[in-house]
Amino acid sequence: MPPAPQSAKSSSPTSLTQAFRSVRTCTERLCDPLEPDDFNLQTMPDVSPVKWHIAHVSWFFETFILTPYSGGYRPFHPRFQHLFNSYYETVGTFHPRPQRAFLNRPTTADIFEYRAHVDAAMAGLLADVDHPEFARIAFLTEVGLNHEQQHQELMLTDIKHVFATNPLHPVYTEARPVQTQAAPPLDWREFDGGLVEIGHSGGGFAYDNEGPAHKVHLESYRLATRPVTNGEYLEFIADGGYDQVELWLSEAWRIVNEQGWRAPLYWHETQDGWVHMTLSGLRPVDPAAPVCHVSFYEAQAYATWAGKRLPGEAEWEVAARDENVDGHFMDSGDFHPRPAMEGEGLQQVYGDVWEWTQSAYAPYPGFKPLDGSLGEYNAKFMCSQFVLRGGSCVTPSGHVRSTYRNFFYPPDRWQFSGIRLAEDA
Amino acid sequence: MPPAPQSAKSSSPTSLTQAFRSVRTCTERLCDPLEPDDFNLQTMPDVSPVKWHIAHVSWFFETFILTPYSGGYRPFHPRFQHLFNSYYETVGTFHPRPQRAFLNRPTTADIFEYRAHVDAAMAGLLADVDHPEFARIAFLTEVGLNHEQQHQELMLTDIKHVFATNPLHPVYTEARPVQTQAAPPLDWREFDGGLVEIGHSGGGFAYDNEGPAHKVHLESYRLATRPVTNGEYLEFIADGGYDQVELWLSEAWRIVNEQGWRAPLYWHETQDGWVHMTLSGLRPVDPAAPVCHVSFYEAQAYATWAGKRLPGEAEWEVAARDENVDGHFMDSGDFHPRPAMEGEGLQQVYGDVWEWTQSAYAPYPGFKPLDGSLGEYNAKFMCSQFVLRGGSCVTPSGHVRSTYRNFFYPPDRWQFSGIRLAEDA
Amino acid sequence: MPPAPQSAKSSSPTSLTQAFRSVRTCTERLCDPLEPDDFNLQTMPDVSPVKWHIAHVSWFFETFILTPYSGGYRPFHPRFQHLFNSYYETVGTFHPRPQRAFLNRPTTADIFEYRAHVDAAMAGLLADVDHPEFARIAFLTEVGLNHEQQHQELMLTDIKHVFATNPLHPVYTEARPVQTQAAPPLDWREFDGGLVEIGHSGGGFAYDNEGPAHKVHLESYRLATRPVTNGEYLEFIADGGYDQVELWLSEAWRIVNEQGWRAPLYWHETQDGWVHMTLSGLRPVDPAAPVCHVSFYEAQAYATWAGKRLPGEAEWEVAARDENVDGHFMDSGDFHPRPAMEGEGLQQVYGDVWEWTQSAYAPYPGFKPLDGSLGEYNAKFMCSQFVLRGGSCVTPSGHVRSTYRNFFYPPDRWQFSGIRLAEDA
Amino acid sequence: MPPAPQSAKSSSPTSLTQAFRSVRTCTERLCDPLEPDDFNLQTMPDVSPVKWHIAHVSWFFETFILTPYSGGYRPFHPRFQHLFNSYYETVGTFHPRPQRAFLNRPTTADIFEYRAHVDAAMAGLLADVDHPEFARIAFLTEVGLNHEQQHQELMLTDIKHVFATNPLHPVYTEARPVQTQAAPPLDWREFDGGLVEIGHSGGGFAYDNEGPAHKVHLESYRLATRPVTNGEYLEFIADGGYDQVELWLSEAWRIVNEQGWRAPLYWHETQDGWVHMTLSGLRPVDPAAPVCHVSFYEAQAYATWAGKRLPGEAEWEVAARDENVDGHFMDSGDFHPRPAMEGEGLQQVYGDVWEWTQSAYAPYPGFKPLDGSLGEYNAKFMCSQFVLRGGSCVTPSGHVRSTYRNFFYPPDRWQFSGIRLAEDA
Repeated sequence: MPPAPQSAKSSSPTSLTQAFRSVRTCTERLCDPLEPDDFNLQTMPDVSPVKWHIAHVSWFFETFILTPYSGGYRPFHPRFQHLFNSYYETVGTFHPRPQRAFLNRPTTADIFEYRAHVDAAMAGLLADVDHPEFARIAFLTEVGLNHEQQHQELMLTDIKHVFATNPLHPVYTEARPVQTQAAPPLDWREFDGGLVEIGHSGGGFAYDNEGPAHKVHLESYRLATRPVTNGEYLEFIADGGYDQVELWLSEAWRIVNEQGWRAPLYWHETQDGWVHMTLSGLRPVDPAAPVCHVSFYEAQAYATWAGKRLPGEAEWEVAARDENVDGHFMDSGDFHPRPAMEGEGLQQVYGDVWEWTQSAYAPYPGFKPLDGSLGEYNAKFMCSQFVLRGGSCVTPSGHVRSTYRNFFYPPDRWQFSGIRLAEDA
Repeated sequence: MPPAPQSAKSSSPTSLTQAFRSVRTCTERLCDPLEPDDFNLQTMPDVSPVKWHIAHVSWFFETFILTPYSGGYRPFHPRFQHLFNSYYETVGTFHPRPQRAFLNRPTTADIFEYRAHVDAAMAGLLADVDHPEFARIAFLTEVGLNHEQQHQELMLTDIKHVFATNPLHPVYTEARPVQTQAAPPLDWREFDGGLVEIGHSGGGFAYDNEGPAHKVHLESYRLATRPVTNGEYLEFIADGGYDQVELWLSEAWRIVNEQGWRAPLYWHETQDGWVHMTLSGLRPVDPAAPVCHVSFYEAQAYATWAGKRLPGEAEWEVAARDENVDGHFMDSGDFHPRPAMEGEGLQQVYGDVWEWTQSAYAPYPGFKPLDGSLGEYNAKFMCSQFVLRGGSCVTPSGHVRSTYRNFFYPPDRWQFSGIRLAEDA
Repeated sequence: MPPAPQSAKSSSPTSLTQAFRSVRTCTERLCDPLEPDDFNLQTMPDVSPVKWHIAHVSWFFETFILTPYSGGYRPFHPRFQHLFNSYYETVGTFHPRPQRAFLNRPTTADIFEYRAHVDAAMAGLLADVDHPEFARIAFLTEVGLNHEQQHQELMLTDIKHVFATNPLHPVYTEARPVQTQAAPPLDWREFDGGLVEIGHSGGGFAYDNEGPAHKVHLESYRLATRPVTNGEYLEFIADGGYDQVELWLSEAWRIVNEQGWRAPLYWHETQDGWVHMTLSGLRPVDPAAPVCHVSFYEAQAYATWAGKRLPGEAEWEVAARDENVDGHFMDSGDFHPRPAMEGEGLQQVYGDVWEWTQSAYAPYPGFKPLDGSLGEYNAKFMCSQFVLRGGSCVTPSGHVRSTYRNFFYPPDRWQFSGIRLAEDA
Repeated sequence: MPPAPQSAKSSSPTSLTQAFRSVRTCTERLCDPLEPDDFNLQTMPDVSPVKWHIAHVSWFFETFILTPYSGGYRPFHPRFQHLFNSYYETVGTFHPRPQRAFLNRPTTADIFEYRAHVDAAMAGLLADVDHPEFARIAFLTEVGLNHEQQHQELMLTDIKHVFATNPLHPVYTEARPVQTQAAPPLDWREFDGGLVEIGHSGGGFAYDNEGPAHKVHLESYRLATRPVTNGEYLEFIADGGYDQVELWLSEAWRIVNEQGWRAPLYWHETQDGWVHMTLSGLRPVDPAAPVCHVSFYEAQAYATWAGKRLPGEAEWEVAARDENVDGHFMDSGDFHPRPAMEGEGLQQVYGDVWEWTQSAYAPYPGFKPLDGSLGEYNAKFMCSQFVLRGGSCVTPSGHVRSTYRNFFYPPDRWQFSGIRLAEDA
């Protein structure tokens, strides 16, 4: 049995319809700045084309809601079940991931038609409040909308990778003028140890991997009041951090040397200092802003160099759940982390940059995946990855919470990932 | 000194301008059936995106003619010299070949502007008949137009690869109704041996690799009157040709097994028999048409199975130079080989399918590459490839001649390559 | 500061000398069954040649004890520091791991001389009880002897891989006659949850990664009274376990298919049923013996199939510390797991097969690696691996304890690794 | 039908027995300087272990002579047919080439027993002059002895690769004192063109690939009187030859950069100048000796740099057939090329270094491979390789002749391969 799911109980049908429209429209707004030439590129196997993203999120509604629950629903195209399945083995075959950009057809125009087809059918279904399975439909719709929000973030990270790979360094959106400001000094906040409970325990939507709530023993610890800044990371670089073997895990050292890492992803050293690629093109690295696009390996090496460590995910969650879930999210339209503000307590817990933890991504005690194919959503990836917390400047507002567990492989750098330091109290 | 080049002496300035317009327009007509989604795909490193092709052929005129000879010419974009250089090391750096589809910018629209910019400048230059270097400009323009014709063929072979990789099997152009007919029976024509001269010796355009004319001793030999048909090749398949190790070269056998070759490229066995991908979509294999999309390895294995051999390139040339250079070329709009007609002597010497020879691609005795960077055009590839002769159904009419040497690696299959058998007399 | 190390304080100098001789002699006895042809093979990068193992363990004493602490010690050969360094980056360069079998020189005879040279120098140093650094020397000697014991186990696992790769299936030692017996039925023992302390807290030798002792909260749980048997694993195979995608982690499924896994490593299906390679050659699979040479992926899939899970390392340790550390170890000379005996409580906790846990290999809270280069021994591998517990039938007796943490990558299968099931109480 | 073979007609049975003993003994003498540790290494897939070589040459006699022709012959071991088959697909399966050093068993001692077993059986068979198939046996024995001589050369080239890979640079045999002398100046000898006949036409043993004799037209040409020396090659290096893209074939340039080639294989630059690995250990590069261990790519680039070209194989053969087949071969025991002597005409045509030609390895007109499995000996490799002529300082005396065609891939460097320049007259 999946944990008392995680549902949209409180949501009225009306609000669900509104949420559906809102999230779906948001995805399309993210496409507005794009040229036709920007929709179908895959600059590494981890990156998916925009065209594929916007088809796949529609496939999700078609496959998990419309086909099983909407009587008489006609799938838009018989081969789309195969083409736009990401990785659900129990649903059927899927197009090879590294070949997603080989799909010249369906065209982008076809895929917008596909979206419209799915939207129309979903509108009908969500209006059918007397449907005997309405509660299930509502829950699955909420999963689908959260899923689409994740892909909104992925679209932006993937667009960034594509634009950054292009030697012309094109601009996705013009940068807004920003007031430059120094970052507040790094400070520490202490948390008492003891037996704590973490994990999601009902009340609002959560993924299966966030539960069940369970007890963990913590020793007292401290967290840095803000993430590590570019300026601080530049000191690590200047101190030869990338050359000091004793700072790095064994497999990290191999990759640092094989890939020639000398700085975070997207950074370039020029005669005028460091610049980095942003969704607004090449811009100078702002020493006050949080460092971003670092791998777990770099986060761990930086922490070792600083004489600190990364937080455990339980430490992070205990600290974060007292904070309001607001911050600098995708909705600002900046698509780039900005410097921390002065303030009491922890800054930038949510938004700006995902924070690597030292916790391997593993099932919580008593974890049960969702029933059926949606059980593949999270559970089968619980190996060889690390947990990140808190969301980023490209995470949709309202998407994350204190129990939210993101996860990536230790060498991954193309997400908006940064570093918050911890230490034993 | 390059061999008495090969020039457009007889061409009047007017006809050169006309030829320029005609070839350039033809390239654009080939794009007419394409959707915006079709311009930027690279389904294997050998394939280039259409967008890249149509930029590169303009780059050729810009780099080798406009920049050196057109006073005051302004390059369209400072980075295009890098982006659209194919492999000319002495010209400068170039974008990595396997990443040509990573160029979301310039857009396809930008590239058509680039073409217009180059066309306008070329029109001016070609009208300037009093230019002190006009003869050189005319020669280089002829090289550039032949180069563009080669890329017209490559665009079609690459579009075919892209469309064939797509599980939806899209159609580039609708097939024309064809009168099905049986192929004439395979017959042989004998040629006397002795000391012959082959290679280009002036009179009309030729590439540097076609010269100089030189003597070769041949023993008497026979050539098949037409290429091997699909029907004949199906017998080879049915006889277990792909399983008989003794038919195959050592490195061929390794590739047959690694890649699981059981038929020519683009062939699929269905319940209703063999079908293959064409530029008009999936169609039944016509037993009467020449077999196409076979590698040198397959051509050699087939010939061994048939108790024959492939022709040497000198044997082919001696036989071909008595034939009119007409046949079934790109201009027919079929883009697919058609069955041989009844007739005297050799059929389908030109057009339909390129014919693999047993000759390694090597410099002729006394060969000198063109001066300067254009010396890289052909000479540096004279290693590990085999010569093909005669052009195909996607070669522009007027592009080939009896001395023309095409060359590809022995496992290559995505060209329109077929088999003509030979034997000792 | 490393944790109150872990030392040989109680050991008298005499017993240390005796231990040194005993462990060193044991290594040589393991070479007795070998032919000269068996000393220098590397059948995969993870495998080291026997010759390299017996040089490397001597290098360890030379590098970490003799060179720094034995005045006037003359290194046996100036290049051995490079050749036989395994992975200590802070010590200096090292010969590439995948090329260890490229060392035709030094010869095996040279390396036995090297051992004698080191042994003589160590004997002198260990007799020098008034050496001002004697306590440090004694501690490092204990590390070196434990290190050599680990390599005794690795020698046997690597010899097994080499012999199993040979199509002639040679025999390392003849099998002893074994009384076949059925395994006792699988039963469960329950353990209460609560706040427990795990990890090493002084008293006898331990590696740095076993400490510090720290508190962990556990829910109540049950452990199987014995490891999974071959007979039980055969049911998993017969039920199509290797074909059921829903049992496998995503990266496991990829490897199962890429590698064609259908059974544990070294198993072959014959007309007469399953046989497997052992250090006594090919032998029938005994249904009563513990399954061995399974990866973490297979252990996890098996547990899922059985409706159970793998134990956490804390659960394992709490259960194991009440058991005597005896069992079926290397010293029996069997080099193969044998069936569990009837008995009260947990069987085969120690020896027979290493038991995969579900715990990612990570630093304990407050963990500090050893100072200096020996800090590279364990810490830099704390990423992407899983913990195994309990030792195996090729672990030297006296080497393991309840806090001992072994670690391998999830696809690794060439260790003597097996499965003990767990479940929530 | 194979071309009028190539046979041992003149050989008396007695001389055949003597030749058998002599060649077999020679193989064993080459093993005399080896330690037990030297017999089973494979430092790259092209290299075979000595142990494998000496088993394979015995396998050849067993498989192609004893088993079919010696009534009652008992194969030494049932699996050796598989283990020591090199590449004869029509004989049966074979052990994977890159895993030849994985065979700890049979031991080297076993393999010497295998040799003795084969030798005894062959002695009996060769004494049976009344055997109805004696002529065939004699011919096959001659093939087997020539085959074994080829492996004598390969053993030395492979031992050199193994010893050179070892950072200790061990010595196979001590170098003999050599009188240093300057090389004679490079001069040219001219040969008239016209219609010539090349290829083997009976009289003494030859491989199938040397025939049939056939006519070729040549233009007049000149050959250098001696091979290129190390001193001359050092000028190419000093002139930046490895950095001048215009000298290199396209695929050569890729490899030069991928592999970081800056000099011939085995060369190292030291503070005291260039040294190179020889079978007598590291020694200074002698400017007077022929350059050795260069690839076809380097030979071609050097020739281009020098304003010359490589000879065609017909040009080489016409010039060489007037020379006595003597020179500096394996039998001198030097195993290293030595400087040319002063003298009339061409020097070092035979021995010292194999000379790359510009001729792709291809079948001669009318070529027929040997019948049966021995047809795999040469024919299936006639693709993507280049012909070398003349033998080297590790070729057994008496093994080569003017028609002899050796062949390797263009990047291969571990053979004793050098450069003789040619030019048009």
